[in-house]
Amino acid sequence: MVGAGRLGGGDGPGRVGRARQTTPTLRPVRAQADELSLSTRGDGEVIDLTERAQRVVDGAGMRDGLCTVFVAHSTCGVTTIECEPGCNADLNAILEELAPRDRRWEHNERNADTNGHAHARAALLGPSVTVPVRDGRLTVGTWQRIVCVDFDDRPRTRTVVVQLLGD
Amino acid sequence: MVGAGRLGGGDGPGRVGRARQTTPTLRPVRAQADELSLSTRGDGEVIDLTERAQRVVDGAGMRDGLCTVFVAHSTCGVTTIECEPGCNADLNAILEELAPRDRRWEHNERNADTNGHAHARAALLGPSVTVPVRDGRLTVGTWQRIVCVDFDDRPRTRTVVVQLLGD
Amino acid sequence: MVGAGRLGGGDGPGRVGRARQTTPTLRPVRAQADELSLSTRGDGEVIDLTERAQRVVDGAGMRDGLCTVFVAHSTCGVTTIECEPGCNADLNAILEELAPRDRRWEHNERNADTNGHAHARAALLGPSVTVPVRDGRLTVGTWQRIVCVDFDDRPRTRTVVVQLLGD
Repeated sequence: MVGAGRLGGGDGPGRVGRARQTTPTLRPVRAQADELSLSTRGDGEVIDLTERAQRVVDGAGMRDGLCTVFVAHSTCGVTTIECEPGCNADLNAILEELAPRDRRWEHNERNADTNGHAHARAALLGPSVTVPVRDGRLTVGTWQRIVCVDFDDRPRTRTVVVQLLGD
Repeated sequence: MVGAGRLGGGDGPGRVGRARQTTPTLRPVRAQADELSLSTRGDGEVIDLTERAQRVVDGAGMRDGLCTVFVAHSTCGVTTIECEPGCNADLNAILEELAPRDRRWEHNERNADTNGHAHARAALLGPSVTVPVRDGRLTVGTWQRIVCVDFDDRPRTRTVVVQLLGD
Repeated sequence: MVGAGRLGGGDGPGRVGRARQTTPTLRPVRAQADELSLSTRGDGEVIDLTERAQRVVDGAGMRDGLCTVFVAHSTCGVTTIECEPGCNADLNAILEELAPRDRRWEHNERNADTNGHAHARAALLGPSVTVPVRDGRLTVGTWQRIVCVDFDDRPRTRTVVVQLLGD
């Protein structure tokens, strides 16, 4: 990367300013990761991973870069939400309307399974979020939490990878 | 990374070729970021951030790597869309059907709030997209735009982080 | 990144342990990419890209880092799913209920087009997933596959970028 001091300017519509800019340093970028093992109840349980991801950042001493939180299962999703009981219940309620547990699921018929709804909900939500890290802190908003939602219809043990890339 | 000249081959189903490959260089990978401050109207306003993200790439002189566009609020989402008035209205219309503003929202009841629908829509859409950068350009398609959608029910000032990692 | 040996600890609720930790090495982080060209049938075809992405990782000799799979079109999405015929049909079925092809689409009316539903579905699913790579392997679960879903209403040729950042 060259010319690193000339950060992108511009005054497009809706833009009112920039709060902070990174001062590039000479520290090398490194890859580092941690795996979390979660015991979940399933049925849409929402598990707040923000503090655990921040501890991985702290432990690595990373200052600036990316933190990807990825769940390695096809019946869980990762997103951000305020993570209070109301928001969590509301997210599950609209997903129950969109992909109801008791609907006919071709996955269940073909595989003698019971969690077709969980597969559909997880594919919609997606398995990961990538959050910038600046000055050693995840840049989530005040009430914005990184969460894993386990849609499966039974308690499970889950693996979440917290992957860091930064200096 | 070793053996960087041997890019992945393969001829799986549906694959007809590769358009371009990166020639690895000796430039070091660096982390760099910019924060955008947006004045939004809320109510599903769709704000095109593509040019602003490209200006951050240009300003940093980044050639190849990743650009993550992340909104640091739990009632906004980031995705890609063609970003013409029809597509933007359609996206909001189906989200109004899925998560209608006037539905009963447990978030509103518990917190004496009015934006429960915004939380649900934002959690579904997700807070970020990560777009590869090649030869100094975001690899978005011709009509594909990186957008922030503000679902809140009032005008707000929003922070978007454009985080680069690349050489 | 300093203090890389002190990985984040903690004993938050639901946490039962960590399976593996990265041992930081002195190999430099590099950016490398490959572009895949796909011939798709459209209409919700689900194309498994996991093996092709793994081949890009293998060819680059990357050990630890991030792999972003990004589709450069506004009528396709990328997510993870079990990718058996039942799950794939179920995902398309709930998207047909949420964003039916024969609904009134403002995109179609404004542009004399026919794929308004494809734009809405793609914006909801999102254009990319970012998957950690550890010890040279994508960290997807046993039945979790990285897929591109082409929602357009006709066969198309599609560009997917597999972007690596790691050591």
